[in-house]
Amino acid sequence: MIPHPYLLYLGSATDELSVKTARGVAAWRPELCLGEARDAGGTVSIGLPQMTVEEAVAQGARTVIIGFANSGGFMSAETIAFAVSALRAGLNVASGLHQRLTASPEIREAAEAANLSLFDVREPPANIPVGNGKPRAGKRLLAVGTDCSVGKMYTTLALEREMKARGIAADFRATGQTGIFIAGAGVPIDAVVADFISGGAEWISPAREDGGWDLIEGQGSLFHPSYAGVSLGLLHGSQADALVLCHQAGRTRIRFLEGHPIPDLRTCLDRNLEAARLTNPDVVAVGVSLNTWGMDAEAAKRACAEAEDLLGLPAQDPVAMGVGRIVDRIVQCFAA
Amino acid sequence: MIPHPYLLYLGSATDELSVKTARGVAAWRPELCLGEARDAGGTVSIGLPQMTVEEAVAQGARTVIIGFANSGGFMSAETIAFAVSALRAGLNVASGLHQRLTASPEIREAAEAANLSLFDVREPPANIPVGNGKPRAGKRLLAVGTDCSVGKMYTTLALEREMKARGIAADFRATGQTGIFIAGAGVPIDAVVADFISGGAEWISPAREDGGWDLIEGQGSLFHPSYAGVSLGLLHGSQADALVLCHQAGRTRIRFLEGHPIPDLRTCLDRNLEAARLTNPDVVAVGVSLNTWGMDAEAAKRACAEAEDLLGLPAQDPVAMGVGRIVDRIVQCFAA
Repeated sequence: MIPHPYLLYLGSATDELSVKTARGVAAWRPELCLGEARDAGGTVSIGLPQMTVEEAVAQGARTVIIGFANSGGFMSAETIAFAVSALRAGLNVASGLHQRLTASPEIREAAEAANLSLFDVREPPANIPVGNGKPRAGKRLLAVGTDCSVGKMYTTLALEREMKARGIAADFRATGQTGIFIAGAGVPIDAVVADFISGGAEWISPAREDGGWDLIEGQGSLFHPSYAGVSLGLLHGSQADALVLCHQAGRTRIRFLEGHPIPDLRTCLDRNLEAARLTNPDVVAVGVSLNTWGMDAEAAKRACAEAEDLLGLPAQDPVAMGVGRIVDRIVQCFAA
Repeated sequence: MIPHPYLLYLGSATDELSVKTARGVAAWRPELCLGEARDAGGTVSIGLPQMTVEEAVAQGARTVIIGFANSGGFMSAETIAFAVSALRAGLNVASGLHQRLTASPEIREAAEAANLSLFDVREPPANIPVGNGKPRAGKRLLAVGTDCSVGKMYTTLALEREMKARGIAADFRATGQTGIFIAGAGVPIDAVVADFISGGAEWISPAREDGGWDLIEGQGSLFHPSYAGVSLGLLHGSQADALVLCHQAGRTRIRFLEGHPIPDLRTCLDRNLEAARLTNPDVVAVGVSLNTWGMDAEAAKRACAEAEDLLGLPAQDPVAMGVGRIVDRIVQCFAA
């Protein structure tokens, strides 16, 4: 629906993790991505050619994607100015921020003047019902995290790829803006009205009768003081049969918040399983996805081995090692 | 802000608990309430004089309040027709349903034609920030529930009255539509965007330096498959120093949902304390509020005694017995 190829806008990001939208789209839809643009002051690159909006248009770009995220999802004056300049140069604009493109009069006027489109993917579908907690057919897996930005989306997409390669019916179900850009559909679960969180999760993973899996992208963490409500509602609505626990190796505290340690992995997993049992008493854990970004290969291997010993589950870094052993465990647990 | 006196509209409710908005306003703001109106088919009364919209206007009513709630908070065709007839008769209309009065073209047109006002109290304030989890000054108490509609708002208001009577600075902080009608302010916490639940709770109970208490109305239940995310975010944002556990004596299952038992009170309390510790490690439980509606006095006393023995906390029905012993415990626990 969103015209491609894309220019990915990184704003003035100086932090690798804040451009995860751009990086995710570039990693999982490389054929759609032409280049990147950033503001003065930005230091992060996702490895695509740097270009201005005019250069991107000249090379055939159709849409610029706001490729960074911030807490609260607001647009700075700088971002608004960039969006206007992109529209004037001839690009549609797509965003996954809470603050809508269409809420900015400048952006709206520039889009109308240029006869171009604005795509706000953080806008949830209308008429999501309240969650009903009723058991439904099909198998569902949810990636749960110890914190935000630990690799839940990447893990879920890697599981989809691996399961499909083995001939297992499996579909990624996006719950965040980046996932929605990648999948072309989904529910931005953190943007629904609070009473409808579990309903939104039920809505994107309805009953399925083909024996296949819905692989649901997790959000936030039960241990995050800002966002745990979203994580819990998603856990309840997903009625997950299987959980994969996602963690960044070595991260000991909730990112950006003082005074909030991440509990040990055993506690993290147990609390998620306990909460998940409210809507699926048979839920099991099938693996640990360990983000070992920045560690050398030996240290990464050691971190995975430690997690395996602690939890008795296969632990892999999906980027460095794939997710084959986690899928082996899924196959083994759900053989019947 | 909402012109009174009020006519309370009960729709076609046949279930006592679904008119809790009307009953709450009538119980806590009796001086503002003139009468009640219901549709054909409705069987519930809150004990006020029955009247038509025309009769209410003749007696001086200024506003009709939609006094019932349903799951999902939608307006039926019948409700819309009633609101239009009330506007034509000369009444403003106020509602706490998720579906906004202003979203109905018929209601909007009737209000414009009559030059009357529409009040949607489920509309959250703009610009609520993301929760930050930072410790803040002041004492806060949160009423948590084993289910919806067990008496969390009533309990909190009863605590405010009792504490004020003892000269303790204490303020009810409304988080639901009925509470907002009663208090004249608050945040409809189940209507904020999911990412901002704990932020909404921080917003309504900011740092206070006078040594007094914010008494925060709870919502839902950690054990409710539809709404637990709201309850958890509210728990985290409240940073409660004290919890009161609210329960309807004899209720063993989540209302309206099949297959979801309410855990025993010990488990309910422990899970709430465990979750609350994420943002306030020093949280303590100070009492149990037991709704014994429909039980005889002896049975009610027995139910309270059982809860006391089980949890080692004062247990009272705030309607039948007041909340004096719970306030005693608060005073005792926070003497220093």
